[in-house]
Amino acid sequence: MAETGASLTSLDDFRKRLAQLPPPDEAAAEKAREREPNLTKPPGSLGRLEEIALWLATWQGRHPPAVNNVRALVFAGNHGVTAQGVSAYPAEVTEQMVGNFQAGGAAINQICKSQGADLRVFSMSLDNPTKDFTVEPAMADEEAAGAANLGMNAVEAGQDLICLGEMGIGNTSSAAAICMALFGGKAADWAGPGTGVEGDALANKVKVIGGAVKLHKKAMSDGLEILRHLGGHELAAIAGAILAARALRQPAVLDGFVACAAAAPLFAVNPSALDHCIVGHVSAEPGHKRLLEKLGKVPLFDFGMRLGEASGAALAIGVLRTAAACHAGMATFGEAGVTDKD
Amino acid sequence: MAETGASLTSLDDFRKRLAQLPPPDEAAAEKAREREPNLTKPPGSLGRLEEIALWLATWQGRHPPAVNNVRALVFAGNHGVTAQGVSAYPAEVTEQMVGNFQAGGAAINQICKSQGADLRVFSMSLDNPTKDFTVEPAMADEEAAGAANLGMNAVEAGQDLICLGEMGIGNTSSAAAICMALFGGKAADWAGPGTGVEGDALANKVKVIGGAVKLHKKAMSDGLEILRHLGGHELAAIAGAILAARALRQPAVLDGFVACAAAAPLFAVNPSALDHCIVGHVSAEPGHKRLLEKLGKVPLFDFGMRLGEASGAALAIGVLRTAAACHAGMATFGEAGVTDKD
Repeated sequence: MAETGASLTSLDDFRKRLAQLPPPDEAAAEKAREREPNLTKPPGSLGRLEEIALWLATWQGRHPPAVNNVRALVFAGNHGVTAQGVSAYPAEVTEQMVGNFQAGGAAINQICKSQGADLRVFSMSLDNPTKDFTVEPAMADEEAAGAANLGMNAVEAGQDLICLGEMGIGNTSSAAAICMALFGGKAADWAGPGTGVEGDALANKVKVIGGAVKLHKKAMSDGLEILRHLGGHELAAIAGAILAARALRQPAVLDGFVACAAAAPLFAVNPSALDHCIVGHVSAEPGHKRLLEKLGKVPLFDFGMRLGEASGAALAIGVLRTAAACHAGMATFGEAGVTDKD
Repeated sequence: MAETGASLTSLDDFRKRLAQLPPPDEAAAEKAREREPNLTKPPGSLGRLEEIALWLATWQGRHPPAVNNVRALVFAGNHGVTAQGVSAYPAEVTEQMVGNFQAGGAAINQICKSQGADLRVFSMSLDNPTKDFTVEPAMADEEAAGAANLGMNAVEAGQDLICLGEMGIGNTSSAAAICMALFGGKAADWAGPGTGVEGDALANKVKVIGGAVKLHKKAMSDGLEILRHLGGHELAAIAGAILAARALRQPAVLDGFVACAAAAPLFAVNPSALDHCIVGHVSAEPGHKRLLEKLGKVPLFDFGMRLGEASGAALAIGVLRTAAACHAGMATFGEAGVTDKD
């Protein structure tokens, strides 16, 4: 991929690229700021749609912005930590759901179709899960870099916007552990029901997460080491995809708790690393709200969803498309012969 | 219109129809409730999208629900109360904006196009504004019934969903006065900047609204009388459109403060009158949040918008379409060969 640079050779290579990210396109942003007040509406009356149009211009690096070609990328991985009984569903459901994605029967298929997006699903060595992070690091360095590479290469030129999501039985445990390691707090602050664990099973999940963070604490020197020790293949792929999207000037929509937890290590290494990302929704998974506060992100929707699969990201496509369409397509006061205020 | 019954002859006729509204379709609702738990996702994990699919089935009166043909109806009217200096823009802007809608240059044109909806604009005798409600009732009985009739007839068979909005310089004053008369509180609780009045001009707007409600208090015997005394042509049209949509089994999406204030008198007469309506967004106009609490409606979005024109209603179309698509199109656990929980 010429556009995003050569493949990552290691997490250290990832770290270096995070230190020299492509900046915002201030020229495109300035053109958006100039046009907006001339459009036939009271100033500011489209609220967040105006902010989104400016953000799209800034990170697409063009004016006017447009949201035509959109792709949702769903990365699927399996997790050794499922051996600890942290999920309400057995691990084979990850592969079954990948089959469902490929057959067109899942929620994300219907969402992409109705929102006008293309869907790509990446099955990441499902018969070779990450290691159980309650015992050892989830991934070796080259394994994590390889997963991030897959995510980077999944981002292809020609898209105006990408949506990032995941599928992986056990991965809300991974997400909760990453958040706790990055931002502190108790395991119970970050662990939630996921697909539906409750009571004793949830108490066990909390214990598993807290124990794992304690076990690896000293070995995890930064966000990417946290991702390697506690993450999963699909989380590393999302991290890589975020990096590639920045280079390809494709603004990215993040899905729920797991996708945002995959993004959080980048933020920890470089607080501007997620400036080209927007969050589609706040999940019902309780840790997500807390995580979004840490990341400084305001979600578009609060619909009590907790599915993953990029569902809450792809649902936002229409709103983003409309924001770009209003900015690009509205008449100015002069063009329309409408009397401006004052 | 055979489907919605003969035209209204008076507000009393409107009152009678509000007492005998078409009920929910419990058979369609039951089919939706039966199907939902079998779809390939953890139960409840699509959150509000699941509730929307059920609501669409209930009020479309069919299963599965679908959101294909969608129309936004924008009613435009002028207001005598603009003589009191309540708006930041002159009254001629109403007609200029109607021209902008017809030429395709307004926000609502871009929103409808990008959300896949048809747009119809109804210019309601703009050279014959309502009376200044600080002096006399805004409308005579037959005038209000006529405006409601126009709204009823604007709802045509063949739509799966309609979006209702308005344009009218001065109409946030009308909306605030209706809300104060219906729900009590102080004028300052309901009056807001509208298109942008502030400082002394806002203080004047508050005073104008409070005075008008006091003036007509004894004469306003119910919600429809409040609508007649303090409303406007476009507000009465929205009220009529809501009634017709119920009869034609077209679920309706309400826009912001003014559209919801136009709906509120129906709710005051019959608390189930808005059960087939959903609210697209909560406006930045401060009275809207308070009004939604009174109506028991939870808006889909909170984007700080305050434009009117059905903008916040039409923006929701994609989400409603996706909710129907997930419910109708997803595979069941059995069809997909995915292991269910337990």
